[in-house]
Amino acid sequence: MKLLYPTSLKLDVTSLEGFGVTLHPYDVHKPIPEELTDAEILVTWANTNLRDAARRMGNLRWIQSLFAGPNDELSAGFPPNVIMTAGTNLHNETVAEHALALLLNAARRLFEMRDYQNRGKWPGHLGGFLPDRPKGSFTSLKGANILIWGMGNIGRTLAPHLTALGANIRGVGLYEEIIDGIQVQTNAALPKLLPQTDALIMILPGSKATWHSLNAERLAMLPRHAWVVNVGRGVCVDEDALVHALHNGIIGGAALDVFHKEPLPDSSPLWKAPNLIISPHAAGGRPRYSEVLIAENLRRFLAGQPLKHDVTSGGMYATTAPGKKSTLKAVL
Amino acid sequence: MKLLYPTSLKLDVTSLEGFGVTLHPYDVHKPIPEELTDAEILVTWANTNLRDAARRMGNLRWIQSLFAGPNDELSAGFPPNVIMTAGTNLHNETVAEHALALLLNAARRLFEMRDYQNRGKWPGHLGGFLPDRPKGSFTSLKGANILIWGMGNIGRTLAPHLTALGANIRGVGLYEEIIDGIQVQTNAALPKLLPQTDALIMILPGSKATWHSLNAERLAMLPRHAWVVNVGRGVCVDEDALVHALHNGIIGGAALDVFHKEPLPDSSPLWKAPNLIISPHAAGGRPRYSEVLIAENLRRFLAGQPLKHDVTSGGMYATTAPGKKSTLKAVL
Repeated sequence: MKLLYPTSLKLDVTSLEGFGVTLHPYDVHKPIPEELTDAEILVTWANTNLRDAARRMGNLRWIQSLFAGPNDELSAGFPPNVIMTAGTNLHNETVAEHALALLLNAARRLFEMRDYQNRGKWPGHLGGFLPDRPKGSFTSLKGANILIWGMGNIGRTLAPHLTALGANIRGVGLYEEIIDGIQVQTNAALPKLLPQTDALIMILPGSKATWHSLNAERLAMLPRHAWVVNVGRGVCVDEDALVHALHNGIIGGAALDVFHKEPLPDSSPLWKAPNLIISPHAAGGRPRYSEVLIAENLRRFLAGQPLKHDVTSGGMYATTAPGKKSTLKAVL
Repeated sequence: MKLLYPTSLKLDVTSLEGFGVTLHPYDVHKPIPEELTDAEILVTWANTNLRDAARRMGNLRWIQSLFAGPNDELSAGFPPNVIMTAGTNLHNETVAEHALALLLNAARRLFEMRDYQNRGKWPGHLGGFLPDRPKGSFTSLKGANILIWGMGNIGRTLAPHLTALGANIRGVGLYEEIIDGIQVQTNAALPKLLPQTDALIMILPGSKATWHSLNAERLAMLPRHAWVVNVGRGVCVDEDALVHALHNGIIGGAALDVFHKEPLPDSSPLWKAPNLIISPHAAGGRPRYSEVLIAENLRRFLAGQPLKHDVTSGGMYATTAPGKKSTLKAVL
C-alpha cells in the first residue's frame, strides 16, 4: 500500500513508519508521477494538482488533508467513495496565538505607536502616566468583556490565555452549552451580548450561514469603544458596513486577518479605514502535530476503524470527541 | 490624623475609610494648601511638588508612593525619619501585559505588516502557507527559549503566560534559585544562556549596577534571530551597541519601551534602526490595586507595625514576603 505525502511542508515521516505502508513524497504543484498514481492514500497540503489527481488516481481510498476546512479537496471531483479527513486541531495553537497578538496590539495600540515611529515622532499620549482602564475604553485585557463568536477548537485554545490575563469570556456557538467553563449562547443572544462586549473575536467558518454575520445592524450594537478581531473567514464580515463603522466611530477598531478577497485588492476602502489592523491571512497556514493525526488515522484506516475528522458526505461534521457536540463547523 | 491622597489618578477613597483618619485630596502639581501642611501621611503619584512638600510638611511621618521605584520621593529632601514605602506589585500586571504584547508583535511581525498596510501593500510573505517555526527563527512563542533578565515580581507575573503559550522560560536574577518553578541563574551564566535564547526580556531596574547590562559583547552572544524586549529601564541597554547590532543583523530585532532619554530625542539613531519597535514608556504608569496597599499599610502604620515595601534607608530593599529573598531591586 502506498501513502503519498506532500513536500509543501516539513513532515517527520519516520513517525509514519512501521505500518507496512510505503511512504512517497510528491510535489503538490505537479501532476502525480505515473508510478504513484496507484496509491491508496494521499496526504494533502496547499495542493494545486487535485483535479488531476482526482482524474488519475483510480485506487485512491483516503485523503488526509492538513487543512481544518478541506474545501479544495471536497470540490476537486474525487469519487464519493474516497474518504476525506480534515486537519482539525492542527491550527488551534497558531491561530489562537495570532488572535491574542492582534488583540493585545489593539488594546495597547502598538499599531498607532508604529505610525508615530515611522514619522520619527514620540507618541507621548500613549505612554507615561495614564488612567488604568478608563470607562468606555479597551486598553487592557484585564476585566475586558471578550466575546468569542465561533466557540470551536480554536476558541477553546484561545480562551484560557484571555482568562489568565483577566478577561471575562463568553462565547457564541451553535448550541447553548458550557464549554470549558465558558457560557456559550446562540446568535439569538447577540442583541444582549454585543452591547456588553469590549472586544469581539470572530472565529467563524465561511459558509452561506455565516455570510456577513457581522453586518451594520450588529456593528451598531457594539459599544463605540469595542474592537473586532476576525481570524475566521472574511465573508463573515460585511466589509462595507465595517468601513462605515470605522469612519464614523461606531466601533473602536478592527483587526482583520481574513478578507472577502485575498490578497486584499488595491481598491479596497479597508486600506484607508482608521483604527484598522490588516494582517495577511497569517494566523494559521502552518499545521502543527500533523504526524500525530496522520499516524493515528493511518492506524485506524488499516484496522478498518472510523477515521478521525471524517468530512466525507456521510461523516461531514462528525463528532470530534465522544459525547461532545460537533465543533467542526466553527473551525472550518 | 490627616492623609493626603493625590488627584493625579482615580482612587476609591471609600476603601480607606474606617481608620479614624481624615482623607484629603490634593493636586500633585501645586504647593500643598496651607491648611493641609500639618498632615502626617502623604500618598504620592507623579508629583512635581515634592521639594515644596519636604520643606513645608513638618508633621509628615510616612509617604506611600505608588511607584515601584519612588526615586523622586527619595531624593526630594524629606527628613530621614519620614518612612517611605513603594508601590511594589501595583505595576506587575500592566507591565507584564505590555511585555507580552511586544513579544507577540515581534514574533508575528505585526510591525512589519503595519508598514506594508501604510503603503497599501499586502505583505504576502508574512501570510499564507508558511513553515512552522523554521530553525533559526523566532516566529512563535511555542517552543521558544525565552530568558527573563530581572526575575522580580513583574517577571513572575509574566512567566506563566509565556509558559502557557509553550515557551521555555529561564531567568537571570541576583541569586541562583528556583522561582515559581523557573530556574534562575546569575549574570555569570549569561555566556551560557544568551546563545540559547530566542527572545530576551529585560526587566532590570536602573542603577549603576545594571548600566549597559546589554552591551556589544552580550548582544554578540545572542543568536542572529534573537529578539530583545526591554520593559525595565533604558540605561540597562547600550543603545549605540544595539543600533549597530540591528543594522548588522547581529540580532533579529528589539522592542523597547524604555530609553536612556525619554521622550526619545529626534536625533536618536534608534528611529531609523531596522527591526526595532519603539513604545513610549507605556508598559506601566497605571497602578492597579493601590487602595489595597494603602489601606493595609495604613492599618500597619496605626498599629505601629512595620510597613510593607519600606524603602527608607533602614528598610531599603526589605524582604517583600516572609522567607523570600528581596526581589524589589529587580522591579525598580
